[in-house]
Amino acid sequence: MAATTALTVNYTRIQTLTLYFQHCRSKRWINLKTVNRRSPFCRSLQRHAATVVSGTELARQIHKEVQSDIAKLVAQGNRRPHLSVILVGNDHASHTYVRNKTRAASLLGMSSSTIFRPSSVSQEEMLELIDKFNRDRSISGLLVQLPLPEHINERAICNAVAPEKDVDGFHIVNTGKLCLDQRCMVPATAAAVWEIIRRTGIETVGKNVLVVGRSKNVGMPIAMLLHSDRNHERPGGDATVIMAHRCTPLPRLKELASLADIVIAAAGVPHLITADMVKEGAAVIDVGINRMQDPVTGKLRLVGDVDFEAVKEKAGFITPVPGGVGPMTIAMVMKNTVTAAKNAPTY
Amino acid sequence: MAATTALTVNYTRIQTLTLYFQHCRSKRWINLKTVNRRSPFCRSLQRHAATVVSGTELARQIHKEVQSDIAKLVAQGNRRPHLSVILVGNDHASHTYVRNKTRAASLLGMSSSTIFRPSSVSQEEMLELIDKFNRDRSISGLLVQLPLPEHINERAICNAVAPEKDVDGFHIVNTGKLCLDQRCMVPATAAAVWEIIRRTGIETVGKNVLVVGRSKNVGMPIAMLLHSDRNHERPGGDATVIMAHRCTPLPRLKELASLADIVIAAAGVPHLITADMVKEGAAVIDVGINRMQDPVTGKLRLVGDVDFEAVKEKAGFITPVPGGVGPMTIAMVMKNTVTAAKNAPTY
Repeated sequence: MAATTALTVNYTRIQTLTLYFQHCRSKRWINLKTVNRRSPFCRSLQRHAATVVSGTELARQIHKEVQSDIAKLVAQGNRRPHLSVILVGNDHASHTYVRNKTRAASLLGMSSSTIFRPSSVSQEEMLELIDKFNRDRSISGLLVQLPLPEHINERAICNAVAPEKDVDGFHIVNTGKLCLDQRCMVPATAAAVWEIIRRTGIETVGKNVLVVGRSKNVGMPIAMLLHSDRNHERPGGDATVIMAHRCTPLPRLKELASLADIVIAAAGVPHLITADMVKEGAAVIDVGINRMQDPVTGKLRLVGDVDFEAVKEKAGFITPVPGGVGPMTIAMVMKNTVTAAKNAPTY
Repeated sequence: MAATTALTVNYTRIQTLTLYFQHCRSKRWINLKTVNRRSPFCRSLQRHAATVVSGTELARQIHKEVQSDIAKLVAQGNRRPHLSVILVGNDHASHTYVRNKTRAASLLGMSSSTIFRPSSVSQEEMLELIDKFNRDRSISGLLVQLPLPEHINERAICNAVAPEKDVDGFHIVNTGKLCLDQRCMVPATAAAVWEIIRRTGIETVGKNVLVVGRSKNVGMPIAMLLHSDRNHERPGGDATVIMAHRCTPLPRLKELASLADIVIAAAGVPHLITADMVKEGAAVIDVGINRMQDPVTGKLRLVGDVDFEAVKEKAGFITPVPGGVGPMTIAMVMKNTVTAAKNAPTY
């Protein structure tokens, strides 16, 4: 039994291996000493689990670059970049996200401020506040933490933030630019997935990418980045991209996943992507952040959209949750803020 | 031989049919009288070729609706809708396209005007002209025929047209709205493909759609329309969408096409989609307009991206070239112009 789980091999590629398994079945183990270690069989037998891509580690790289950029900006006589966040209501997760962003800003040598408003705030007051911040030259980047209370039109709020300060990349002009392959503020989570792929050296040109989830802040922009032309103003991944979502029947999702060199899971469904779906050696990037109660301890814990432990044994690369896309997303907000500061008119 | 091409059947579904074929092979024909006509075999043997979807016919439907909308608008005391076109240079195809549009406008009871400029026109003059037309309340819809000479920045021109008069749907705000599933001016060719699918009754929800070609005016907006949520402000097709393009290797394209319930060919490659790629019964929509010299007559003729004659024998629905997406595209420009007239402020 132990041997069976440890050996994840491609049966179709190495068909004769089946014979060896059948030979060993009665013993329930395989003695590696009896196999020629230089043969392809042996390399398969010794196959390691996926490389776990640490988002925390990659974020550290980006943090260093951001710090160096800030130092240069300040040395050139510019103001220190400043991130302003507007936070409405008492949602626990929103408060945590905002705290993580402002903490990162301060660690990297950026100043930041958080403006709290009660959930009873009116849309007019929000628009006035945003307008004031848009005109304030000491503010480089401005973000309004979503979700907002139901009586506020989120789209109107996103479109009110000046596009050049819109470090979340949610303004309609930034969406338009993204989809037309122009340089723009890319939504942080999509930018995080892009950087993970690039910095891990995962090839995208001509590859099959399955994006599961079509949200306007995550799935859609990821599909835009990955399918578009690498020679355009904002370079794309030149991959064949499959956009799947809740209307994709599960058997069809499995079929498409089995063809994918890269699977990006951004559906918000715990453990949607299982080991039987994934192609051997594929890169699996888990964007899901689902809070689930541990059946043993009763505590809440974060799980992704990928069945990490099982998929790890089959994939070539995999990102964990937590510690994968999450820290990279925060790093990309920081990078966007410095970009905003660089693009700001000097005066 | 004749029997072989006339009988396009699903060999995997009706396996025993193979035996019948083997029996008949020596004769090279099948006598239908020897088969029970009520059996499923017979229904397969009598299978008809694809329904050829006439874009000309569907365009006629839309023309009638547009005419009725114009009559209502005018009866309500509004100005008659007016389409203005700016045409730069002497490109033959561009002149033909513009003539087709203004002719359609006049047939439907819209007024129109074409402003010609030499290819030496400056970007400044173009921008001034567009600005004048934007402010002119007698103009409902305005389009600048593309392509423009190289010294003019097409993007700057597209973004200069007022979004509410932008009947081509090329303004960045219309792109942003399209990608965020908001009501907007949809690029006419993408809107044409959408209407063909809708009016032919082809199901999209949960289906597999392959879009071949990722141009910003055709492939990309088609993918946006078809993958998005049917319950959003601008309803989408809720399909699983595969975005393929020149970087998709041909064997991979074949593999993906064989999974597709709907194939939309918008690559600009003559006869790219062949019968061996297409799934039996699939809907095949040909957006390609390629001018090719006839090897026999030496004359130029239009061919699509689909090998029409061969694919027709296997598909469930197919659009021809010419007479498919082309006339529907013009109809959608007319529809967009009436929408612009409806949305214009009354005064």
